Amino acid sequence: MKQDHDWQLDGIVKQLHEARSEWRSAQGRTHEPGDRELPSRTVMQGIIEALAGALFPMRLGPADLRKANENFYVGHTLDSALNALLQQAVLELRHANRKQPVQHEELVQQARAIVRRFAAALPGLRRLLDTDVMAAYHGDPAAKSVDEVLLCYPGVMAVVHHRLAHLLYKEGLTLLARIISELAHSDTGIDIHPGAQIGPSFFIDHGTGVVIGETAVIGERVRIYQAVTLGAKRFEADEQGNLLKGHARHPIVEDDVVIYAGATILGRITIGAGSTIGGNVWITRSLPPGSNVTQATLKNQPCTD
Amino acid sequence: MKQDHDWQLDGIVKQLHEARSEWRSAQGRTHEPGDRELPSRTVMQGIIEALAGALFPMRLGPADLRKANENFYVGHTLDSALNALLQQAVLELRHANRKQPVQHEELVQQARAIVRRFAAALPGLRRLLDTDVMAAYHGDPAAKSVDEVLLCYPGVMAVVHHRLAHLLYKEGLTLLARIISELAHSDTGIDIHPGAQIGPSFFIDHGTGVVIGETAVIGERVRIYQAVTLGAKRFEADEQGNLLKGHARHPIVEDDVVIYAGATILGRITIGAGSTIGGNVWITRSLPPGSNVTQATLKNQPCTD
Amino acid sequence: MKQDHDWQLDGIVKQLHEARSEWRSAQGRTHEPGDRELPSRTVMQGIIEALAGALFPMRLGPADLRKANENFYVGHTLDSALNALLQQAVLELRHANRKQPVQHEELVQQARAIVRRFAAALPGLRRLLDTDVMAAYHGDPAAKSVDEVLLCYPGVMAVVHHRLAHLLYKEGLTLLARIISELAHSDTGIDIHPGAQIGPSFFIDHGTGVVIGETAVIGERVRIYQAVTLGAKRFEADEQGNLLKGHARHPIVEDDVVIYAGATILGRITIGAGSTIGGNVWITRSLPPGSNVTQATLKNQPCTD
Amino acid sequence: MKQDHDWQLDGIVKQLHEARSEWRSAQGRTHEPGDRELPSRTVMQGIIEALAGALFPMRLGPADLRKANENFYVGHTLDSALNALLQQAVLELRHANRKQPVQHEELVQQARAIVRRFAAALPGLRRLLDTDVMAAYHGDPAAKSVDEVLLCYPGVMAVVHHRLAHLLYKEGLTLLARIISELAHSDTGIDIHPGAQIGPSFFIDHGTGVVIGETAVIGERVRIYQAVTLGAKRFEADEQGNLLKGHARHPIVEDDVVIYAGATILGRITIGAGSTIGGNVWITRSLPPGSNVTQATLKNQPCTD
Amino acid sequence: MKQDHDWQLDGIVKQLHEARSEWRSAQGRTHEPGDRELPSRTVMQGIIEALAGALFPMRLGPADLRKANENFYVGHTLDSALNALLQQAVLELRHANRKQPVQHEELVQQARAIVRRFAAALPGLRRLLDTDVMAAYHGDPAAKSVDEVLLCYPGVMAVVHHRLAHLLYKEGLTLLARIISELAHSDTGIDIHPGAQIGPSFFIDHGTGVVIGETAVIGERVRIYQAVTLGAKRFEADEQGNLLKGHARHPIVEDDVVIYAGATILGRITIGAGSTIGGNVWITRSLPPGSNVTQATLKNQPCTD
Amino acid sequence: MKQDHDWQLDGIVKQLHEARSEWRSAQGRTHEPGDRELPSRTVMQGIIEALAGALFPMRLGPADLRKANENFYVGHTLDSALNALLQQAVLELRHANRKQPVQHEELVQQARAIVRRFAAALPGLRRLLDTDVMAAYHGDPAAKSVDEVLLCYPGVMAVVHHRLAHLLYKEGLTLLARIISELAHSDTGIDIHPGAQIGPSFFIDHGTGVVIGETAVIGERVRIYQAVTLGAKRFEADEQGNLLKGHARHPIVEDDVVIYAGATILGRITIGAGSTIGGNVWITRSLPPGSNVTQATLKNQPCTD
Repeated sequence: MKQDHDWQLDGIVKQLHEARSEWRSAQGRTHEPGDRELPSRTVMQGIIEALAGALFPMRLGPADLRKANENFYVGHTLDSALNALLQQAVLELRHANRKQPVQHEELVQQARAIVRRFAAALPGLRRLLDTDVMAAYHGDPAAKSVDEVLLCYPGVMAVVHHRLAHLLYKEGLTLLARIISELAHSDTGIDIHPGAQIGPSFFIDHGTGVVIGETAVIGERVRIYQAVTLGAKRFEADEQGNLLKGHARHPIVEDDVVIYAGATILGRITIGAGSTIGGNVWITRSLPPGSNVTQATLKNQPCTD
Repeated sequence: MKQDHDWQLDGIVKQLHEARSEWRSAQGRTHEPGDRELPSRTVMQGIIEALAGALFPMRLGPADLRKANENFYVGHTLDSALNALLQQAVLELRHANRKQPVQHEELVQQARAIVRRFAAALPGLRRLLDTDVMAAYHGDPAAKSVDEVLLCYPGVMAVVHHRLAHLLYKEGLTLLARIISELAHSDTGIDIHPGAQIGPSFFIDHGTGVVIGETAVIGERVRIYQAVTLGAKRFEADEQGNLLKGHARHPIVEDDVVIYAGATILGRITIGAGSTIGGNVWITRSLPPGSNVTQATLKNQPCTD
Repeated sequence: MKQDHDWQLDGIVKQLHEARSEWRSAQGRTHEPGDRELPSRTVMQGIIEALAGALFPMRLGPADLRKANENFYVGHTLDSALNALLQQAVLELRHANRKQPVQHEELVQQARAIVRRFAAALPGLRRLLDTDVMAAYHGDPAAKSVDEVLLCYPGVMAVVHHRLAHLLYKEGLTLLARIISELAHSDTGIDIHPGAQIGPSFFIDHGTGVVIGETAVIGERVRIYQAVTLGAKRFEADEQGNLLKGHARHPIVEDDVVIYAGATILGRITIGAGSTIGGNVWITRSLPPGSNVTQATLKNQPCTD
Repeated sequence: MKQDHDWQLDGIVKQLHEARSEWRSAQGRTHEPGDRELPSRTVMQGIIEALAGALFPMRLGPADLRKANENFYVGHTLDSALNALLQQAVLELRHANRKQPVQHEELVQQARAIVRRFAAALPGLRRLLDTDVMAAYHGDPAAKSVDEVLLCYPGVMAVVHHRLAHLLYKEGLTLLARIISELAHSDTGIDIHPGAQIGPSFFIDHGTGVVIGETAVIGERVRIYQAVTLGAKRFEADEQGNLLKGHARHPIVEDDVVIYAGATILGRITIGAGSTIGGNVWITRSLPPGSNVTQATLKNQPCTD
Repeated sequence: MKQDHDWQLDGIVKQLHEARSEWRSAQGRTHEPGDRELPSRTVMQGIIEALAGALFPMRLGPADLRKANENFYVGHTLDSALNALLQQAVLELRHANRKQPVQHEELVQQARAIVRRFAAALPGLRRLLDTDVMAAYHGDPAAKSVDEVLLCYPGVMAVVHHRLAHLLYKEGLTLLARIISELAHSDTGIDIHPGAQIGPSFFIDHGTGVVIGETAVIGERVRIYQAVTLGAKRFEADEQGNLLKGHARHPIVEDDVVIYAGATILGRITIGAGSTIGGNVWITRSLPPGSNVTQATLKNQPCTD
Repeated sequence: MKQDHDWQLDGIVKQLHEARSEWRSAQGRTHEPGDRELPSRTVMQGIIEALAGALFPMRLGPADLRKANENFYVGHTLDSALNALLQQAVLELRHANRKQPVQHEELVQQARAIVRRFAAALPGLRRLLDTDVMAAYHGDPAAKSVDEVLLCYPGVMAVVHHRLAHLLYKEGLTLLARIISELAHSDTGIDIHPGAQIGPSFFIDHGTGVVIGETAVIGERVRIYQAVTLGAKRFEADEQGNLLKGHARHPIVEDDVVIYAGATILGRITIGAGSTIGGNVWITRSLPPGSNVTQATLKNQPCTD
């Protein structure tokens, strides 16, 4: 391959530059500072892996760890992960404030306070996750041990990500929270918006295709299966046709509800405590406690022809 | 960022320690040995990649491999992968026996016998996988060559994982088997329990959202599409309400059946040979051979309004 | 573990060799050259990441990049990615021509012409992707900024992959194109065949389980949700029962259509401009512009029992 | 290995903590800020490799580089290396100023000005290094091409490091300069203090064991061999016995001097232009131009016995 | 490059196998167990880097470490390094005992006791190294800070390695000790046998080419320069001509001695306290305290001709 | 650090481009092809490590290797290393022929023949290295086992590199040979030109600073110590003053010679069989067999003053 690889790059680089310039003009971004302002997906992945190890050292920590020295590992790993999180938090805050001038030092102070609260919440979060692990163990007849559950179950890993992301979401770091959710989504096919509020002992089995929206509220001991959607029925818009953001538009699922695979539940409705929702069912109205819904077609069995 | 990063770690580490201690007390694990006992997902991934390369050296092996020297590569790669598998097998056996005292050497003997049988089964497994590759090539009008199928098709990769996992499942290494299944699940969105029994010439197209349960039995030349579920209808419990484990609770799919996207087939029912199951259909009763089921709603076409 | 690890490898290696030989005989491949002929998934992943960085340098490029020096980065990254793509293209062309003798130099010339056209198309592709990013931002009430959209949304990342893959598909490099599609499929659960033709301002939300077939045609400003299928109704076969390849068999979706989660649209039908397709609907007939289809069961609300 | 690995770490960690505390008290460092203040050897290594690539793109740059696109590579690599150098420079300046309060922003300004001057000096430095490469090629009868010289000769690599380090030394970044020198020292066994002033067309052959001191001055077209020392004769101390730092204490070597292996030249003496210094000679007095010194023992040949 | 790469490997592999077999026969090793028995250089390098970080956390530990959380880092790093050292120690003990049968568990017990003593010695070793760092800082007029000394000086890094290696040497783990020494030798060109006994406040400047023999004894506050040899004069042999091993054959250097570059001191002689040894001097007889030796040739100055 | 990092790169890149252009003009290289033509140091390092593993599988191969499966490892590793070596050989041949047009295929043929002969020489080379290992074991009173010698001794590692490099040197691949030599030089401080001819049972102890020239000839059972030079006395030039290349200019050292540390032996002289050369001696005349030379100054002992 001796000939020249002439890709005419000078022209292409110039045209790409023009495309970027037009976009920036159109977006009113021409005067923004010239450095990259965004948190990093790769860095966040490392932070989450470190936090998971610190929360469950003997099961998700390094292979050569011994119980006798867990605390050293937990302390050092937290320190390192929280320092990295601080930097990412500063990047998000700077991005959020890019249109008004804010002192760098002020952003750092703000980020530091957030990370401190985040750190203080971790022991409680560990106890919450313990309830989820037990829910998975008890909820799946194929589960042989709690260790297998934590090591193998994508639903459990998605909930670990969600509970960490939700802490950041509540602190206003919605971009970092979203990155964490998408890391889990990519690994597990389970898409839980970090804004969703989920009670203890929550279990998702199989999980691929599950979607849980931003304003969903889920009670205690809820169990759901693959491809379940807890979504919005429609998007509300204001008089100019702009989408309204942030208002409650996803379902409330009360305690002890089970939702089987493929069920779709839409809108700000309430599924009453103790209900069972059958597979593939489509629901857009509230249900009283103790409801037992199955697909209409079950009564209307598909016939062979 | 000159100020101190004071995360109050001493307190947090202490609280996390307490949370772990309480969990261990609650689980009756206080007296277990202090080292990590679990197999490693990362190590298993390396083993599976090596085995895949040894099974298909010219397509999944290293880029610079030549046919003339395949056997050296195959032999060395198998040796290395089987040695690593032996270690993981010992870890699983030790974990499984953690409540009774077993000599380390005895576990090694047991693991070694398993790995030896596993190794001996690989040539047969290669021939089985060849039938799956051909089924994919013939079953998809978009497939241009068998090489493309092995390189690109997530359904084929999921079946390679499954057939390896199933060998270990039958040997009682259910945790290793499960880890392998979840590696495929994470990559492909296809969730096949390692216990499922699947005949030759099996093809899954697209695949995202497919779930196949532990006691499912699938015949020869079966083809299924994305989001198909072969699941349990309900979980049987004993008189105390504990889930019964291990009994047959998933469908039997006989030879030459095709199941289109989104179909849900639940319970220990039998889909007779040569049947075709339409998309999104929900089935909980057995079907005779040659059945052709389509969605009830096809007769009841959704109308525009 | 002092005992010998005797895996009886000599016999197993021999049997695997026999299995490969039989397969090669059966496939008529005994006389093919002895080197590996296939492009590499890992190399293609690196190329796609580099191209994504070159297209969106300040958001997907390296963290320390500054606007002042974007062009250097873009130029160098393109050069390196295009050189690598050239090599992969040669591998695919050689594989495609493995049954007839073609001069190596001729294949390189052919590949070089393709890569040159591919490179020249990149500025236009960037402008097209800008419309997709804006569509995502405007289409999701949860989206806080266009940066978040590009960084986090799997649907956007799938479209970036698709538009690059589609360029190669049109050049006849269908294997490289397929590898790119499957990289996105594995990461996002979104399976878009590289042959699909998709207009500007396209947005997929959540995305897990979406399948878009090879001959699908999608207009401008179309929005679809998770688990939507644009598939083939049946596979046409010739008189000998061989599947017909390449003919139009997937839907045409006109401008400004919205398709909600789980909808299945099959066959060479047309969904008229401005239509809205409700969730879980199953459609196999064309619809006029402005149609508004919802699930039959909505009229036939699942009742509690 | 089931027993506990009890290293009594609590006690050891405590004792190490005490040892550090005592050292910090003794050094008056108790009140310094609690973060790490020092530049990183690993980061500097990456910076030097990048700069070497930018200076000689077709010989030390990436393997797939083409002449047509050198400038993109050079520009991007410089940008990235200079950004990284800026950060290291800030770390050194902060360390140098750790006893007085300096605004972070002020340090950044200072570092930025240094890096800008450093960058502007690179084209001249490349021309200087070209003279060194030619000197190596002409000075070694074993050299087959200038490419071999740049790729293989440790003496050339040591000079590349030295000339970069010397630029930083002159800017007062003596710690960064020293780190660069030690990187070369470790790789080549050639120890050139970054303060040494060295003229064009300089060549060190073989090189292991060469030591050139901080205040040495070397003219044009000088050639030296392994284990040559240009050192200080004695260290001057003040009346309190403290070593005097920084005064001229190493030799001046004028133009066109050759110094053979193992020669030791000590003190602020001058080796006159055009002199030849024989191997293993020990010199502590100045020599006039054109001197030709050989070991006394040459006249006094070692006899066999 | 389509033609076959036919390296005739079958024959070459067979011949290499024969060469190994002959060697093993000649060495009486045919009946040894078939697994690799030797410690790993790479693993030892990781252990040493970890120990260096634990000894000097704020200067050799991770860049993001803060004083407030040093102890967590120190504890976790020690735990991990000591666990790895235990495994290497077991490998060396098994190798040392390969001709007699020893229970694996017995070797582990022995190794564990050694590692425990090694760990307990670390705080004292840190204090010793502090004296070496101060000696370097005070002994070199070019040293700007103690931090620079620890970060940059190869002589200091060689002493850190030596003091760790010497601990293991005294425990009988001479192979591990030797590996550590050679790691330093390769990096710095300083070759200190791990058996050498070296007092506090020891400093080697420049260092390339220094050789210190196994039975050398060095007092307090000794300073030596590059290419100094403390060697054996001759090797004693027994009546059969076999080299005698282990007897004292290297010099004793008393307190406060300075030895300049290139001096060679051979045999079990004593250099009296406070002596100064000039550069390139060759010494094979003991010297009384306070001696001041310079090269004979200094009196016999090399003349120009 | 919000301000712009303005390094004025456009100007610097332009000036660097001019410097390269001038150099290329001066070197008559303007019309050379635009791609990088040189072998890679990193690739050669990988090749050498692989070859060392294939030569000594149980000591330098992978840690998990078992004797039972050595041959698979050896065969696969050789295959991979030889394929890589072929590519490097083609690069060197192309570079060597860059001024005349040679068909790529012709170069490949030539390279393939060289690599085939290289491969065939490996079993003999292993037997030769076995004699070197034994020489090291018997020549050093500190050596505890042959395993330690191969694992730890830099002199042995330098000889392994040299013997491989010398094979390539004899085939005319002098650049690849030189790269291998410099890899050893950098690691060990031992600089053996790949052209040197060295007999069996060769041992270098300590080694730092050893230099052995291109045309040196060394007999059997020779032992040398650190800082020994076997060099050229002067460089012969033709009438125009150009250095004469390639003629014999380094010493011949006959069988059973020992040369102690720091001895310098220069010119095409012969050191007769069985001679012993003392440390730091300077020799430029031939010596008869059985000579025993010690430093003149030994008779003229340095006196204390």
